[in-house]
Amino acid sequence: MTSIINFRRPLLIQGLSAPKGFGDSTLRDPRPDAIELLGGIPDPLLLPTDELAEATARILKQPGAPSLQYGRTEGLTLLREWIADREQVPVEEILITNGGFHGLSLALSLVVERGDLVAVDNPVFPLFLRGLELNAGQILPINVDNQGLVVDELEAQLLSGLRISALYTVPDFHNPTQATLSDERRRKLVELAERFGFIVIADNPYRELRFGPESADVTLFNTSNQVIHVNTFTKTLGPGLRLGWVRLPKHLIKDGVALRSRQDSHTSLLVQSVVADYLTSSPGVFDDLLDTARSVYRSRALTLATALEKEAPGSFSIPVPEGGFFLWPKLTNPDIDSDKLAEAASAHGVEYQRGAFFSSGSGTDADRRLRLAYSNVNESQIAEAARRLANALQSLG
Amino acid sequence: MTSIINFRRPLLIQGLSAPKGFGDSTLRDPRPDAIELLGGIPDPLLLPTDELAEATARILKQPGAPSLQYGRTEGLTLLREWIADREQVPVEEILITNGGFHGLSLALSLVVERGDLVAVDNPVFPLFLRGLELNAGQILPINVDNQGLVVDELEAQLLSGLRISALYTVPDFHNPTQATLSDERRRKLVELAERFGFIVIADNPYRELRFGPESADVTLFNTSNQVIHVNTFTKTLGPGLRLGWVRLPKHLIKDGVALRSRQDSHTSLLVQSVVADYLTSSPGVFDDLLDTARSVYRSRALTLATALEKEAPGSFSIPVPEGGFFLWPKLTNPDIDSDKLAEAASAHGVEYQRGAFFSSGSGTDADRRLRLAYSNVNESQIAEAARRLANALQSLG
Repeated sequence: MTSIINFRRPLLIQGLSAPKGFGDSTLRDPRPDAIELLGGIPDPLLLPTDELAEATARILKQPGAPSLQYGRTEGLTLLREWIADREQVPVEEILITNGGFHGLSLALSLVVERGDLVAVDNPVFPLFLRGLELNAGQILPINVDNQGLVVDELEAQLLSGLRISALYTVPDFHNPTQATLSDERRRKLVELAERFGFIVIADNPYRELRFGPESADVTLFNTSNQVIHVNTFTKTLGPGLRLGWVRLPKHLIKDGVALRSRQDSHTSLLVQSVVADYLTSSPGVFDDLLDTARSVYRSRALTLATALEKEAPGSFSIPVPEGGFFLWPKLTNPDIDSDKLAEAASAHGVEYQRGAFFSSGSGTDADRRLRLAYSNVNESQIAEAARRLANALQSLG
Repeated sequence: MTSIINFRRPLLIQGLSAPKGFGDSTLRDPRPDAIELLGGIPDPLLLPTDELAEATARILKQPGAPSLQYGRTEGLTLLREWIADREQVPVEEILITNGGFHGLSLALSLVVERGDLVAVDNPVFPLFLRGLELNAGQILPINVDNQGLVVDELEAQLLSGLRISALYTVPDFHNPTQATLSDERRRKLVELAERFGFIVIADNPYRELRFGPESADVTLFNTSNQVIHVNTFTKTLGPGLRLGWVRLPKHLIKDGVALRSRQDSHTSLLVQSVVADYLTSSPGVFDDLLDTARSVYRSRALTLATALEKEAPGSFSIPVPEGGFFLWPKLTNPDIDSDKLAEAASAHGVEYQRGAFFSSGSGTDADRRLRLAYSNVNESQIAEAARRLANALQSLG
């Protein structure tokens, strides 16, 4: 092995932290029979595997195999048109991505100068902070309550003189708190963005998985010049596709395409073609899929909340989620050590994310909470997980 | 429409140039019946469309649909193992990418500090320079002759005191010149990299498409600590997959994974799974595919060279390629205006890339050359293209 002379890691690379906490499987040592309530993972039984295989067969029979050739950086027109029609935005504003996280990464590079201050949810989706390392961004945590981001707190910080280039929030079925940003706060947030000249990065992976009849209104996110609306098929058609989109305001489209073309040209045209073929294969095919998924996930959310209350009565205060994949229960007994509980739970065969992993600053009760994913466990696993968690609680004395 | 207040584009974005020349279709206005000798595009008839559809059907039948779930940033183990076995490198050194261009972009971010000097082929694959804009890299052009990069010229520059953090070259069937770097120069290049502490980015999209029995030796590129070897399935299985890999030296693996995980998590696991299933479906399936492709492309290269000499005797000096997708003929008559020739050719219904687009500095004859892609045109189209080009030449008087 020859020696490495003079090799100097670029600053960008030096700024990337080692894995820790959330998402770091090396920190876990689960039991072989562990029930995992860990990730925002859709149930594979709810994914349209047969339909995607059929779509692939159709797509690969097209003369000239266009899905195996180069495509446009913006994405496949058929897919962008389907999305634009559904979202009621001009097709030019839709840029296809390799999933939601890629959308976040693009959004950050488009609007955040290195070292800029970026306001973020507190608690926050932790991988966003890891993505922000590429921009060496500094964070300004803004609390999230049961109506989502506390926009008045952001306003106070801005009025005190702080300046941000972007704000990051998950507006619908917030990860981890499950709160949905109220309509009034949506309006005020965009007004602040216009007034103080920052861009809102609205990260919306779970929005289609609502349990109630009405979606939250995303019109502002799809029309404002101050908002990049980040969306994905990850939670509905599967993370493994790596397929999503951003709705970019007009003034960022050219930059977005220029940046993307220099990263990896475009998203797999085979994946785009297959998904577009599936989505347009019959009217309502996607809504039918969503209806089934919503019903299953809603049932699991209720089952888990009910089972926790049954197995460990009074131990948790449990906000009932209105959509998404997670429960965010709070320990009612302040004497319980939540790190010890997570260790005991692991020993009892149930794995979840500790609430403390989601803090982006002080002032929240995240370290008293658990993020429990119910999306990829069946009803009997949920019941067993609740029993194990109750036993773990008891074991702490 | 609300106004955009205070929005300041990040420096990285400001550094991205507008499209121009190579690859900018807005500059072309082809005839409806134009024959396109433009891009490094594989013939779709040579791509394994049926086999990929069958592989997809198998993959999407797997219990739990693992190909639709999250995967490891490094890539799918089965695919990495197949590549590592073929390349005779440790599997840890293989990082899956979204195609060759993505590999270049990752390599640059891993080793080039913003504003660093990067040595590049002259003439060069122009999109590399566009990718380098993300790093605000300055370029040091090094000439390419019929044995590839002139390594002695690089050495002289280094001895004169210039320092580079990376060198970019296409070693096998160079794009556009078609030269293959000699074994002696390979050794000397890596020695220089060790001595002067830079990283060689060896971009090798065409290497499998050799016309002769022997491949160039890539052992050094797969073993040296100073080389990132960038590879792709783009030219063999199709650009639309967006699937490739980089062989990273050990000291760059951790950084490579950290960087990639912050961009877009990982390459489509569906695409990786389908290709891995296809590649392992029977022994030799990939080599059989390559044998057919090599034979077809070799025949087209010879047909085009022969037809050009027949239709426009003595007008071109034509190096015979030993692999790849391109001819790089030189105009023998110095009085012919090569820009005017390209315009006349377009009017006569044949489109190609002007040699001038490939210059990275002075001192080459690139502006006297044409890059003619024969990969995605059949033999009769090739004959007709040569006739049209000869007519275009004649039309210049």
